[in-house]
Amino acid sequence: MRWIREFSEGSREQRELLGGKGAGVAEMTRVLGAERVPAGFTITTEACVAYMQAGRELPAGLGEEVEEALAALERNTGKVLGDPEAPLLVSVRSGARVSMPGMLDTVLNLGLNDESVVGLARSTGSERFAWDSYRRFVQMFGNVVRAIAGESFEQALQQAKDRSGAKADTELGADELRELTTSFKALFEQTTGESFPQEPREQLRQAITAVFDSWDGARAVAYRRINGIPDDWGTAVNVQQMVFGNRGAKSGSGVAFSRDERTGEATPSGDFLANAQGEDVVAGTRDAEDLAALANRLPESHAQLLDDLTQLESHYKDMQDVEFTIEEGRLFLLQTRAAKRPAQAAVRFAVDATEEGLLTREEALQTIDAEALEALLHPIFDPTFEFEVLTTGVAASPGAAKGAIVLSAAEAVRRAADGDDVILVRPFTEADDVAGFHAARGILTAQGGKASHAALVARGMGRPCVAGASEVKVDAEARVVRIGEVELAAGDLIAIEGTTGRVTADEVPLIVPEVSEEFEEVLRWSDELRRLGVRANADTAEDATKARELGAEGIGLCRTEHMFFGDDRAELVRGMFVAAARWRRGEVSAASEDGPAPPELESARSEFHEALDHLGELQRTDFAAILHEMKGLPVTVRLLDPPLHEFLPLEHFEAEVRRLEKSADDRLTYAREAAEIVRDLQETNPMLGTRGVRLAFLYPQIYEMQVRAVIRAAAEAAEAGDSPLVEIMIPLVAYETELRQLREHVVNVAEEARRETGTEVPYSVGTMIELPRACLIAGHIARHADFFSFGTNDLTQTTIGLSRDDVEGSFMPSYLAGRIIDRSPFEVIDGPGVGELVRIGTERGREANPDLKLGVCGEHGGDPTSIQFFDSLGLDYVSCSPYRTPVARVAAAQAAIGAK
Amino acid sequence: MRWIREFSEGSREQRELLGGKGAGVAEMTRVLGAERVPAGFTITTEACVAYMQAGRELPAGLGEEVEEALAALERNTGKVLGDPEAPLLVSVRSGARVSMPGMLDTVLNLGLNDESVVGLARSTGSERFAWDSYRRFVQMFGNVVRAIAGESFEQALQQAKDRSGAKADTELGADELRELTTSFKALFEQTTGESFPQEPREQLRQAITAVFDSWDGARAVAYRRINGIPDDWGTAVNVQQMVFGNRGAKSGSGVAFSRDERTGEATPSGDFLANAQGEDVVAGTRDAEDLAALANRLPESHAQLLDDLTQLESHYKDMQDVEFTIEEGRLFLLQTRAAKRPAQAAVRFAVDATEEGLLTREEALQTIDAEALEALLHPIFDPTFEFEVLTTGVAASPGAAKGAIVLSAAEAVRRAADGDDVILVRPFTEADDVAGFHAARGILTAQGGKASHAALVARGMGRPCVAGASEVKVDAEARVVRIGEVELAAGDLIAIEGTTGRVTADEVPLIVPEVSEEFEEVLRWSDELRRLGVRANADTAEDATKARELGAEGIGLCRTEHMFFGDDRAELVRGMFVAAARWRRGEVSAASEDGPAPPELESARSEFHEALDHLGELQRTDFAAILHEMKGLPVTVRLLDPPLHEFLPLEHFEAEVRRLEKSADDRLTYAREAAEIVRDLQETNPMLGTRGVRLAFLYPQIYEMQVRAVIRAAAEAAEAGDSPLVEIMIPLVAYETELRQLREHVVNVAEEARRETGTEVPYSVGTMIELPRACLIAGHIARHADFFSFGTNDLTQTTIGLSRDDVEGSFMPSYLAGRIIDRSPFEVIDGPGVGELVRIGTERGREANPDLKLGVCGEHGGDPTSIQFFDSLGLDYVSCSPYRTPVARVAAAQAAIGAK
Repeated sequence: MRWIREFSEGSREQRELLGGKGAGVAEMTRVLGAERVPAGFTITTEACVAYMQAGRELPAGLGEEVEEALAALERNTGKVLGDPEAPLLVSVRSGARVSMPGMLDTVLNLGLNDESVVGLARSTGSERFAWDSYRRFVQMFGNVVRAIAGESFEQALQQAKDRSGAKADTELGADELRELTTSFKALFEQTTGESFPQEPREQLRQAITAVFDSWDGARAVAYRRINGIPDDWGTAVNVQQMVFGNRGAKSGSGVAFSRDERTGEATPSGDFLANAQGEDVVAGTRDAEDLAALANRLPESHAQLLDDLTQLESHYKDMQDVEFTIEEGRLFLLQTRAAKRPAQAAVRFAVDATEEGLLTREEALQTIDAEALEALLHPIFDPTFEFEVLTTGVAASPGAAKGAIVLSAAEAVRRAADGDDVILVRPFTEADDVAGFHAARGILTAQGGKASHAALVARGMGRPCVAGASEVKVDAEARVVRIGEVELAAGDLIAIEGTTGRVTADEVPLIVPEVSEEFEEVLRWSDELRRLGVRANADTAEDATKARELGAEGIGLCRTEHMFFGDDRAELVRGMFVAAARWRRGEVSAASEDGPAPPELESARSEFHEALDHLGELQRTDFAAILHEMKGLPVTVRLLDPPLHEFLPLEHFEAEVRRLEKSADDRLTYAREAAEIVRDLQETNPMLGTRGVRLAFLYPQIYEMQVRAVIRAAAEAAEAGDSPLVEIMIPLVAYETELRQLREHVVNVAEEARRETGTEVPYSVGTMIELPRACLIAGHIARHADFFSFGTNDLTQTTIGLSRDDVEGSFMPSYLAGRIIDRSPFEVIDGPGVGELVRIGTERGREANPDLKLGVCGEHGGDPTSIQFFDSLGLDYVSCSPYRTPVARVAAAQAAIGAK
Repeated sequence: MRWIREFSEGSREQRELLGGKGAGVAEMTRVLGAERVPAGFTITTEACVAYMQAGRELPAGLGEEVEEALAALERNTGKVLGDPEAPLLVSVRSGARVSMPGMLDTVLNLGLNDESVVGLARSTGSERFAWDSYRRFVQMFGNVVRAIAGESFEQALQQAKDRSGAKADTELGADELRELTTSFKALFEQTTGESFPQEPREQLRQAITAVFDSWDGARAVAYRRINGIPDDWGTAVNVQQMVFGNRGAKSGSGVAFSRDERTGEATPSGDFLANAQGEDVVAGTRDAEDLAALANRLPESHAQLLDDLTQLESHYKDMQDVEFTIEEGRLFLLQTRAAKRPAQAAVRFAVDATEEGLLTREEALQTIDAEALEALLHPIFDPTFEFEVLTTGVAASPGAAKGAIVLSAAEAVRRAADGDDVILVRPFTEADDVAGFHAARGILTAQGGKASHAALVARGMGRPCVAGASEVKVDAEARVVRIGEVELAAGDLIAIEGTTGRVTADEVPLIVPEVSEEFEEVLRWSDELRRLGVRANADTAEDATKARELGAEGIGLCRTEHMFFGDDRAELVRGMFVAAARWRRGEVSAASEDGPAPPELESARSEFHEALDHLGELQRTDFAAILHEMKGLPVTVRLLDPPLHEFLPLEHFEAEVRRLEKSADDRLTYAREAAEIVRDLQETNPMLGTRGVRLAFLYPQIYEMQVRAVIRAAAEAAEAGDSPLVEIMIPLVAYETELRQLREHVVNVAEEARRETGTEVPYSVGTMIELPRACLIAGHIARHADFFSFGTNDLTQTTIGLSRDDVEGSFMPSYLAGRIIDRSPFEVIDGPGVGELVRIGTERGREANPDLKLGVCGEHGGDPTSIQFFDSLGLDYVSCSPYRTPVARVAAAQAAIGAK
């Protein structure tokens, strides 16, 4: 094992070994020449991993290698660490594979001690500079390596300033800085019980150890959690000759981008601070100037910098972000990396770079963070506007919205019908609230996270949603919402930003982004380059319109039950299910003496059928509108899926009984029976209960009604010239026989409806694959299916044994914190578990039925990492919420490019 | 395709093609010679399947084949169907692969018509016999083939008897029987609108069709459901020359067993009816004599029969059950099959046959129905005692019990402590009732089936249980139990038989079986022959004793949480969890202003730890007792698994609040907080929620306490010279990291406990595999496990998406009725789904860790079919409830023999 590489040895390909900074510095050395990059060496990430694994012990041999590398550096620079004449000073910087800004530690000016400080003063001709450097080193070393609180140093500094009457640090003279250094060293000794290390090699050893340790610091761990960075990557350590931007008027430091980092425009931009070190630029203690100012002050350095930026950008084939220092007129580049940029800049760069011939389309696409693109479609809070953030919850569904506070779905529907903009504020949401989601501009909940019901439905509908804002207390009785000290009444204005989780009561202006030409261009390329189809999940004509607008090639999931909610329908649906259950109970017990009399049974039956007919009409109209929107594109209609009691909230029925008891209404008997029926339908584990295809065996009439409605709607659409393409999907299949029987039944009903309407509308019949068993016996199921759609949401729940409704608040946080999982399996597909089942299902299904069409309609269908996985399995399409469609199109293209 | 085989062509190996009866008749023809078996032919089961698949249409070519076979039969017998001189008569009998007694149809005397009846009279010299045969044929054909109600014929018969003043059928003369035939034919014509078919070939065609149709008759379908017989087997049809046992004093019919069918004793037994047809023996209208009577009446036939029985038994190598007819002194055998026998007879036969040299041990074992053996261990109702059955529920856990009715677990515990025998009667049972199970002699519930909580726990403890007795209404307030019209008060006597599901209020004597020497012998052989280890699931020292007694080689599952129930402990456990949750909530919110004051936090913490210490002591004592019982045999201790709220019934806490509100008690604040905490712990899908290893990340202290208790108990046992062998099992693992971290933690605590106790007790650490994901990533998990125990109960729930608590009452019955599944996947392992995951888990686990020990601890570990599957996967052991151990030992031996 070699633990160290000199800069001149490395290259950009060695990012994993050398970290981003190490690989960047090495590559710059190769590209721009050694004179532009201060010399040094990198201790590899492998050394860090070995250090961690050994329980924080430096690996054997590292000490010797550091010695050799230092000797080489001294030969190379002609300076010696700790030299009392003209000492070599070095920086010791962390550098992980991916940038973790501010999360890992850095020590500068290392090599100074009571002797070499004199040499530094002599060689630079500035005693003040030398002592200022030394006191900074002691301060940084104490703080970073020995964890002495920063304020202690700041206090001492303040006292020194007070003593000398200085306002700014810069007003302190050499003597005062010497004294300050002494008091810093005293502080060090007092806090650590050891005197400040004078031996530069010992300083270096401790600094390296500190950087390694910072990898497991609380901040870094938290950052990795949030950004999905594995814990076992480790960080490299870069030891590099110091250069100084604070050596006078011809010196300075800055950061520069090869293009405008906000817009992507092809003009370099950046910040420059004259006579300052890089750290000052980052700290932002002084106002920085722009690159134009640099051009004025140091035109040659400026021209050189621009040249270098161009060279680096074309070398890296990506927009670059560099750190530079000018020491007495000589330009040094300290770091280069791909520039972080907002979505609009990323898109602009991709298109420009392609036009310039810098990148191919394929290369350009790979520079875009697909995940970020959704932000381009949603309104945001005006970033220039100042407002008070009342609380910040989970950023559950992107976009910003504002409106009057409403506290129930019914209220939302009512006020929206009056033309008001409303925000639905709830402790948490349930199936029943769906109508309110449609009516509201946005949703705010006190409980739940990214996988909660509220978040899921909101994302599906493209409604902004802030969830899990635990400071929000909803008092439905008093009709007020309390957020911390602030009390808002129903009807008061509230604004939420689901992209960031922020909540305010201020009248923030919303900015609605326009879809730029460049974005359109990028999407066009994506469509040309991707293999995977992209559809959208849409339950209404409105969603369907949005889906087409955003480029969906069909509807991958139309949840028919969402049509069951809505003010006018909920009552009808409740009546239908109660009648159905009454009838069924009646039939079962009709043989016994206690059974209902035939007239009662008949009345339940006809009530059930009447409600069904009514609902069938409503569904037909809904389907027709959707098919009209999607002309010619396939629409996958999923037959009824959720457990019955989602439509039958027990509280509702019990409340009804209490209400009627008071008024001695003659409907009381019926209400009591209904409540009893609903109570019987409660399940211990509804997720694993009577739902999906299982309902169809209890109440075949419901699927019959739905199939009839779909085919009739298709016939209508066909007549109107819309070339409807209907795919009927049966959910929750676990057994081959379920699908075989149901398919037969569906085909019979569909054929009857075709005969009745006198049309030959095409349709296919397939199944949702959302149970582990279905994946395992996919070879059998596929014989009766034209298509599979993997329902990865439910498949995740059963495969891992995780109830989406329950885990977020309980152990999931501890699992993320405890590093058991890196990201929620509801956000990104769990490759080794759920993904493995999708792989098995795909293989076995295709083998049995080569014509089988395969898609994904879970939330994962809109997640770039998951899309890459699905592409690698060779699925035919993914389906996601309409607003994720552009993300999915780009991610699918990236997957196809990456697979080549 | 050839649809027909003559008897002389077939053999016993062709059971699938020819059905049991067809294969038996063919084999008898080969073994005993054609003179002993009436000639005939078999229409294959394939013809039946083709008939069904074609929508009840006879397959092409069958008609021609029947013609040819008939012609051959006529040549063979020298008689002709429908001949007016000496006609051939045939029987048309069903015959499926396995016997389905009385479920399928049969027609006798076919070939008679208005002309041939005269021939029959002439050739037999008995006009009375001829007309009696004809009227019987019309009656049977009308009933079986044309579904004319049997009563209609009985009525006409009664009228004829009334007219002639006859008491019995036998008193009717030839003329009266001729008249009766005429009125039967008139009845036929009147009911069907067609005249009675005179053409024998048409009679035959209709009879064959009727037998095929009977395969899908309601009775047959129901029987297949219950006995797990696939629907697509179909039945064969046997057409055979009639012989007559009703031709006078030298004629008769009977059934005979090669050995005593009740005891297995090596003496042939049987029933004989002189001058009667076989159907009369089955109908039981006349009292049959035994074989001794036959020996008196017809010594030659008797001797011949005994010879034949011996020959058949040694040929078939199994106890035989034959039907015979003696026609005018000539013995015919009509059928032979393996004799159905109760478990004790099966065991006796196996041992005797081996001693006689008839069978090898391996062969003898294969003659035993392992499933039935459990009955030998449990008491039953005295079969000679007459009593009134009040209702029959689901036979949920075998054995019989009687005692005073108690209505709650607490009452059961109290009265049992007073020395009373009690039966716990509940609408349904919950985790909380477990203490009551232990105290009660038996359990009776109104709801739930074989997979219900009550059934599961009862079987685990070996308590008889009748579940789902829906006629039982429990009125807890009035303290009465109503069963139909009968009302029983708490304290009244009730008796239940869990083997049959029967419930009575009569004082039925219970018979406690003794384990026979032969049974011991069979178990000894099984232990020599099996490959698979057999352990028992046991949670108490009492269970452990039973387990050892019944030959368990260890405890495969000791559910530590069952120790948490019990009168004295439930309160303690509730207090512990509430304190834990209070502490945790406190810690989480300690940072904020609303958080609890430090003293409150500290009091919750110390309450939690005190309760833990107390429970730890109790668990240590429990473990020590179990380890003492199991000296030297491995004991797998599963750490806490169920969701918290199983220990924290919300109703309990809410009732407490209401109680304290009334008395204005100062513990009200605490009770309210506790209720709120418990409310927060409610989960939508507890099966997929915060349980198992997930709890360990929230409350590591609980597992620590349990590990400490186990090791301390082991240390004690070691000191007492018991050589304890402890296996610590972590439940519900889904991620490699969970097990890696938990294993480390468990080992740390265990090592500490070993140091503290100064012993080196051995222990290993493994995991329960009960989630699909765990099976899929078994290769990773196995690196951190010494053993896997497949928890097939929960694995079934997640793989198929079936909540055991919910499905039984809802769609499962319709799935069984609708032929979607043949048997509940909670009874027999679901091979293609759950079994496939066990296979994957086994393969991947073994590959990664060749030393991995593999077992099964779900209910399937005691099911013979499932055991065969587990043996085929090469698992190391199965673990089942103590009383199933003998079943498992024999089934494991059968699996090993079958695998050779």
